[in-house]
Amino acid sequence: MPLSIDDVRQARDRISPHIHCTPVMKSSQINRLLGCEIFFKADNLQKVGAFKARGACNAVFSMDSSELERGVVTHSSGNHGAALAWAAALCNAPCTVVMPENAPQAKKDAVASYGATVQFCKATMAAREASVADIIAEQGTTLVHPYDQDSIIAGQGTAALEMLQQVDSPMDILMAPVGGGGLLSGSALVVKQSSAGAITKVYGAEPEMAADAFEGFKRGERISTYVPKTIADGLRGTLGVRNFALISEHVDDIFLTSEARIIESMKLIWSRLKMVVEPSAAVPLAVMMDHADVFKDKRVAIILSGGNLDLEQLPW
Amino acid sequence: MPLSIDDVRQARDRISPHIHCTPVMKSSQINRLLGCEIFFKADNLQKVGAFKARGACNAVFSMDSSELERGVVTHSSGNHGAALAWAAALCNAPCTVVMPENAPQAKKDAVASYGATVQFCKATMAAREASVADIIAEQGTTLVHPYDQDSIIAGQGTAALEMLQQVDSPMDILMAPVGGGGLLSGSALVVKQSSAGAITKVYGAEPEMAADAFEGFKRGERISTYVPKTIADGLRGTLGVRNFALISEHVDDIFLTSEARIIESMKLIWSRLKMVVEPSAAVPLAVMMDHADVFKDKRVAIILSGGNLDLEQLPW
Repeated sequence: MPLSIDDVRQARDRISPHIHCTPVMKSSQINRLLGCEIFFKADNLQKVGAFKARGACNAVFSMDSSELERGVVTHSSGNHGAALAWAAALCNAPCTVVMPENAPQAKKDAVASYGATVQFCKATMAAREASVADIIAEQGTTLVHPYDQDSIIAGQGTAALEMLQQVDSPMDILMAPVGGGGLLSGSALVVKQSSAGAITKVYGAEPEMAADAFEGFKRGERISTYVPKTIADGLRGTLGVRNFALISEHVDDIFLTSEARIIESMKLIWSRLKMVVEPSAAVPLAVMMDHADVFKDKRVAIILSGGNLDLEQLPW
Repeated sequence: MPLSIDDVRQARDRISPHIHCTPVMKSSQINRLLGCEIFFKADNLQKVGAFKARGACNAVFSMDSSELERGVVTHSSGNHGAALAWAAALCNAPCTVVMPENAPQAKKDAVASYGATVQFCKATMAAREASVADIIAEQGTTLVHPYDQDSIIAGQGTAALEMLQQVDSPMDILMAPVGGGGLLSGSALVVKQSSAGAITKVYGAEPEMAADAFEGFKRGERISTYVPKTIADGLRGTLGVRNFALISEHVDDIFLTSEARIIESMKLIWSRLKMVVEPSAAVPLAVMMDHADVFKDKRVAIILSGGNLDLEQLPW
């Protein structure tokens, strides 16, 4: 059975006792500045400070007791690791997180604070996957992939599902940042399979310096090797297989934006919405600033993906 | 007639079409860290980014049309100025704001962006008041004082009034930062005149480097000359006459905290609540960190007073 909106609905029922239904925020000043109406789904206020709590919670609560007893493992630049550590702790399941050495300190600390075992590796996808494979071979733990897994995609889709209920009237566009593609593929599934006309188009937003999803989408072929150099540390993963398939089918377009614009967007969100978001979460608004004509007079739903970063190392 | 909770209720009815009923936020991590339960009233998400929108809106909407036509004037380190400019614009009333030269750039910009005339003066209370007196003499405008005025105090009290409705069960303590005393006096009035037992005690929170309210409260005599040097720019004013009287009558205690603790508290709010607050708003939580024994196991309501600051000039 291919993944469907029903899986997302089941995920919502499964995780809703544990996660926040995060608020939708607006800023009349940002709307005036960009000439459109934006609805920000504040998943920076989610458990563990990122939407990743949704997928991790769904994955862990879908496992049986013997699997939980052996524990879970993942690789993550940070937010998924923290989310899995948090979700595993809810079920008293052991958890190991493989993290790239260059992950932000705040994210390393968060993973450890939820009681997971942290293991560092080089900052490449190959190194991450090799470390995880070793751990699975040694310990018989279950991999909970950060994005390329049905239960994760269904969980991440619950943010868009909530948004459809929170914003009454139809919207023109939903936009999510794309790294590994869990959030974007889950969101696209929800939008395209929900009752007609609630949201018309789904766009991905990606940094120019991590443009593997954009290039693969345009080419019709997933790019699996890419060395990202973006400040948006949450978007440094390359698009997963399941994610690429869903995105190819359901996403209308992917837009790029520059590092400078991501920082500008981040400051705009901090200063106008008064909310702390990490660089990755600022990418959709940065895209809107770079492609103003596409979004003029539109009603746009944006998912603010997370709010975890080192306050001592701000990019301005 | 002395000011009463009925004035605050009338203020709420008058301003509620124009202001936000701001959310109450919690953080299980902050609660664990401090060993108590804290309810943060997020008035950093209020119009103009501060609770000051409440008082200014109440003051302006209490004026008659001929007064509004002549316009309003005030002196302010920033948030009250922006709030008055915003409220005056709602009524098409001219507005002049006298600001100290050392106010944060973000606050200067905000006042100008709402269409008010900005006039700079030296950073002393005497200089502020002299400039305002000149403008009133020349233009026949009405002073809307930043704190020492009944309509302002009643307006600021609406934050505590909302909180009493938003948090169901009884709380032990409500704490607000104290500068000129508008927020603290209005809050104290509400708590002490509301139905018995909803909140037991009201505390003020003040920086050691701006301890005029603390010293006057302990001495039983208002201190009118004081040179504050705190990072909490919103708390640099000295306590008003009406504010001192209400605080002496209704506030249970005032606690001090250090500059370093204010910065630590600010970072804790940014990193855990994912909300941008200015230094003044972090003072109550800083007090809790400094006086942990007073707050142990208590249910504490804190008003996050504002979120306006220069992101380029963070104190860490």
